[in-house]
Order: sequence, then C-alpha cells, then structure tokens
Amino acid sequence: MPDFHAGRRAALRDLLLAADLDALLVTDVVNVRYLSGFTGSNAALLVPSSGEEGTVLCTDGRYTTQAAAEVADLERVIDRPCAPALLRRAAGAAYRRTGFESHHLTVEEHADLVALTDEVRLLRAPGLVERLRAVKDTTEIAAIRTACTAADRALAELLESGGLRPGRTEREVAADLETGMVRHGAEGPAFASIVAAGANSAVPHHRPTNAVLARGDLVKLDFGAVVMGYRSDMTRTVVLGEPAGWQRDLHDLVGEAQRRATAAALPGADVAAVDAVARDFVAGAGHGADFPHGLGHGVGLRIHEAPSLAATGEGTLAAGMTVTVEPGVYLAGRGGVRIEDTLVVREATPEILTLSTKELVAV
Amino acid sequence: MPDFHAGRRAALRDLLLAADLDALLVTDVVNVRYLSGFTGSNAALLVPSSGEEGTVLCTDGRYTTQAAAEVADLERVIDRPCAPALLRRAAGAAYRRTGFESHHLTVEEHADLVALTDEVRLLRAPGLVERLRAVKDTTEIAAIRTACTAADRALAELLESGGLRPGRTEREVAADLETGMVRHGAEGPAFASIVAAGANSAVPHHRPTNAVLARGDLVKLDFGAVVMGYRSDMTRTVVLGEPAGWQRDLHDLVGEAQRRATAAALPGADVAAVDAVARDFVAGAGHGADFPHGLGHGVGLRIHEAPSLAATGEGTLAAGMTVTVEPGVYLAGRGGVRIEDTLVVREATPEILTLSTKELVAV
Repeated sequence: MPDFHAGRRAALRDLLLAADLDALLVTDVVNVRYLSGFTGSNAALLVPSSGEEGTVLCTDGRYTTQAAAEVADLERVIDRPCAPALLRRAAGAAYRRTGFESHHLTVEEHADLVALTDEVRLLRAPGLVERLRAVKDTTEIAAIRTACTAADRALAELLESGGLRPGRTEREVAADLETGMVRHGAEGPAFASIVAAGANSAVPHHRPTNAVLARGDLVKLDFGAVVMGYRSDMTRTVVLGEPAGWQRDLHDLVGEAQRRATAAALPGADVAAVDAVARDFVAGAGHGADFPHGLGHGVGLRIHEAPSLAATGEGTLAAGMTVTVEPGVYLAGRGGVRIEDTLVVREATPEILTLSTKELVAV
Repeated sequence: MPDFHAGRRAALRDLLLAADLDALLVTDVVNVRYLSGFTGSNAALLVPSSGEEGTVLCTDGRYTTQAAAEVADLERVIDRPCAPALLRRAAGAAYRRTGFESHHLTVEEHADLVALTDEVRLLRAPGLVERLRAVKDTTEIAAIRTACTAADRALAELLESGGLRPGRTEREVAADLETGMVRHGAEGPAFASIVAAGANSAVPHHRPTNAVLARGDLVKLDFGAVVMGYRSDMTRTVVLGEPAGWQRDLHDLVGEAQRRATAAALPGADVAAVDAVARDFVAGAGHGADFPHGLGHGVGLRIHEAPSLAATGEGTLAAGMTVTVEPGVYLAGRGGVRIEDTLVVREATPEILTLSTKELVAV
C-alpha cells in the first residue's frame, strides 16, 4: 500500500520545510509504521525534506524478509542499532539540520548520537508525525470502525451466551471478550482488557483477577480490538440481576455526562472545554471528586495518542480525529460506572463507532 | 508484600551511595513496581540514599485506591505529571545530586525537568534498577516458573485437543494458546504470541494472520504467560504430518545449538561467548546467515530485559539470572525452526523452567 504512505511522507516534508529542517530521524516505531507501512518491532526512518529520494528505512536482520515485502518502495538498510546507522546516512548526505523525535529518544540514546558526528546538528522536533496522525484518513477510520465492530460483537456474544453470570471470574470474562474479538477478525486485544466486578468496579484501571462475579455486582468492561494495527476502545458497565437504586442513578449520571460531552466534541472545540462539559455536570451532581481521570484521548495506532481530552489538554478538535469520550464516577468500596465510546469528530455531529447499547443492561 | 520491596530499595540505596547520589528519581513504571509493588500504569518514585524516610511514590487520581492498597508502607502523592512533582520534593529536601533514569526519560521530559529548578542537579544514572532486576530472588523465580507452567499446559492442551491441524488459522491457534494460559492461571499473554505456519515460519517475528495451516507445514509457536507481572517465553516448532528430511535436519541443527548454548549458560560466562556457542555451531553447518538474531535475553517484569545474550552483549551471567536461549534458523520461502527455553542460571547446570518436549513433534 505505498500510495497513502507516500502521501503521509509528503505531508511530513511540508512540516519539515516549515521548521527549516533538512531531514527528520524518525525513531518511534509507530511513526515509522505510519509513514512506511513497516510493522516490525525495531525500525527507524530517515525522511529528507527535499523529496522521496534519500528516504531510508532501517531495521534488523530478523525483519529482512518482512521489510522487503512491506516497504518495497523505499531503500532499506539492515543494521542494529538503527538510529546511529541512519544518522551516518544523514551525515553522508549533508543533512546538516536533522530533526529528531525528542519526545521519544531517551537522554542516553541522544547522547550516543551526538557523540557520533559533528557534521549533523541534531535539533529537537517533537510531535511532528503525531500531529499528522491525530487526523485520520478514510483507510484509518475504516480500520478503527472494523475494530469497534469486533468489540461490539464480542460483547454481544458474551451477553447472549450467558458468559456474564455469577460464579465466573473476571479473568474468564476478559478471556472470552478477547477470543471473541479475534473470532470476529481482530488481530488481538488493543490493550489489557479491564473486567472489574463489585467493589473492583470502583477502581478505574482495575485489572482482571480471579475475583468471582456475584449477584448484584456492577461489572465494568473496558476493552478493544486491533485491526490492521488500529485500535478501538469501549467501556460498558452492566449489573448482574436487578439494579439497585444507587446503581441506576450512577449509571444515569454517567450516561448523561457522556451524552453531553459527545455532543460537544465538534471541530474547533477546545479539548479542555469538552472535558469540562462532562466534569461540570458530574460536579454539579456532587461527584466531582469521584471522576479522577480525563474525559478521553485520541485512539489510532496507539491506544492513547493525541489529542488529550482533559482539563490539562491543549488545542482544538478537528474533523477526522478519532477520540474516546469516557467519563466515569467511582464510589470507593461500592462500585463505579464508566461509559466510553470511540467516535470520529465530524462537522455536524460525531460519528460513534462503538455501537453497543449504552442503556443499563441487567443480566 | 512490603518486606522484599524494602530490601530492594536498600540494595538500590547502596548503589546510590556508591554513585555519590543523594537520591534517584525513578520514572520507568516497571522499576517503580519492582521497588514498591505498585502495579498502575503511571507512577514515579523518589528514593533518597539516606534511608527509607523521604521515599515517596507518585501516581495520578485513577490509582488513589490501588496505591493505598499496594504501597501502604510508603508516603504517596497524587499528582500528574509525576516526575515534576517528585523533583519539587527533591528540591524541598535538598537532594542536590539527584540521579534520573537517563535510559528512560526522553529528551523533552528531561528538558522540562531541568527548567523546573536550579536547586537540584539532575545527573544521568542509567540502568541502576535494571542491574538489580537482572538477578532474580526466589519470589520472582517462583512467579516465572508458574508462568512457564501455564504456557507448558496451554501447549499440551492444544496438542491433545487436536487444535493444531490443517484448516485452522494462525490466529485461531494463537487465541487457543492465550486462553489456555489464562485457564491455567496466567494474568494474560506475556507478549503478542507468534504462530507462523509454512513459509511464514521463516519470518522470525511473524505475527499470526488468517493464513490457514496445511499438511506438511512447519508451525512455529512462540508465546508466554504473565503471572504476578512476571513473564515466561518459550518457542517450539512442530510439523503437521510426517516431517520431510530437511525439516528434521533443520530441527536437529537448532536443537543441538540450543543444547550447547544452554550448557554454556553458567555463572561467570561472558554473554557474547554464550551467544557464540550457538552461532558458531550453526555457522559450521553452513547456516550462519540464516540465524539473524541474538541468542536470548533476560526475562522478568519485562519480556526483554538485561542481560542481552548476543554478539553485541556485554557482561557476564550470574546465578539467579533468568534468561531465554533461543537459536533459530530460517530458510526464506521454505520454513524456519526456533527452539526456546526460559531458564535460571545456576551453579552446576541451568534450571530449565519451560518443560515442553524439545523433540520434533509431528501432529
């Protein structure tokens, strides 16, 4: 699929020219994948601002065959480590002003590179590829949509099969969701699935244990699929048996916060303001301190990427961004509710990609 | 389990004193877990060299409850981001020479910290906690052994159930292994499982696709489990049906390389020399170029950690290190064989933790 990767490299070159850089040394392997299509776990890419010529992918000997298949359109170098190999290339090509991914390279890695050559000035260039990645093209949205569908189907099957019932463990339920997503076309889970029952549901990022589900429990399910490297992210909270009044109230509160914030996720909206829509509503109900995390995040090749929908987030939404909206309210020792969709920011109203019902499901 | 975490912090303080540091700012969350027991995804830890007093864990509001449960014995700060919060602590406590994990902190993160205060001199201190982590204590080895057992059992069930047969896809087999490990007590898979059939087995780090297994295929299975955060890593290569002569020869070659290198993995052995035992044997059989990766790596809280058993590796093995030994020979377009154990370096002979047969299994 060289066409859209070449288009992304062209867009990056525009950013390099604007930053007065001769080249960018891309060391984040996810950015390498985005720009080249290479899916191995170790790689770097040198992208000159002057044009496609001189663009070089580096990986190691484990991936010689795979790189030739996936990146047939670019020059490839097999070496290890890759960043020094490509810096020598940059020196040889006299890319005197070479940017590096200073938000990714460690202080040690950077020191090793600086010691390597005097011919190249290494300049901090954080977040350039991430800026491109934040707005998805149709191919990317299609992959994320397929990943969302795999998660929706896995949840539907779990509920229909009676897999969510008292006596089973959190881990067994998580394994069911993960195999269900694979059966429906996923490459695997997008992250370590969260299944949290009873009081555990009040721990925002609880991980599945051998805790046994019991009648009356709130069960929080936060999981996603990977398709073509792209991720989905969805949370639903269900109740085992007839919901208690406080469980229904909590679910209604979070559901309304989620709806309001979703409606505010429009092009041009300030990310902190979208977060505030949900946060102010929850605080107005007296639960401000029980919503201890951001509203959402971008999702794509990484499960967490730009933009950050949080009080500390900066910038505005743009059409084509794919983000989560996931308020949660957690009552320590009792239980918590989080409701999360993955959605695409669109002109009139967001396009929700995770389609499982957000009504309170009682099983 | 505060006791052994406190012991690890005491060992770290010895390293800090030897490096003339007043404190270490630990930002790698895996190192934070090792030193404190905290298992959340965002945290930092400040460890003064003077004693336990002043040791502070920082995490964010999602983990308030969890941190109180897991790290009851240490002072806790809820803030975000954590590294600046703890650097302000270091300044307040006049830890003028504070080390930071320069192999983990990015150039941007470091620049932000440096801009924060003049009262603390931030000094590069790479790999201190990793040095401790390389040698496992009995608790850690017990967890890795349990993880290895879960993987052994998952493989045995896959073979006994007939799950490895022509007509199934690589992804289905990978999902079976992963749910099998969870059924046998794993928290989840240790990494993205590799199932590679036929010509795909010649791609060292192939990831499972919808490719269908066929009679006559070599099938390479590389997978592991997580138990208490600790990982196992095992590869076996089996054949579907009666093995062809070249398949048997390839398996014999890799098996002998694996046995020889395992026998050499003793305390005091140079890691590059252990790698050379397998590499020279494979090269002597005319397949040097077909073994394009290192012999093995440390395994523990991370799937890849110190030491590196590779031609470029440095240092020697020590009793209690837990490492993989995993030579592989890959014939592009035909198929490849890799055989991998996780083992503990012991005085007389290594203790192999992955106990599935290394004979060529024909199913």
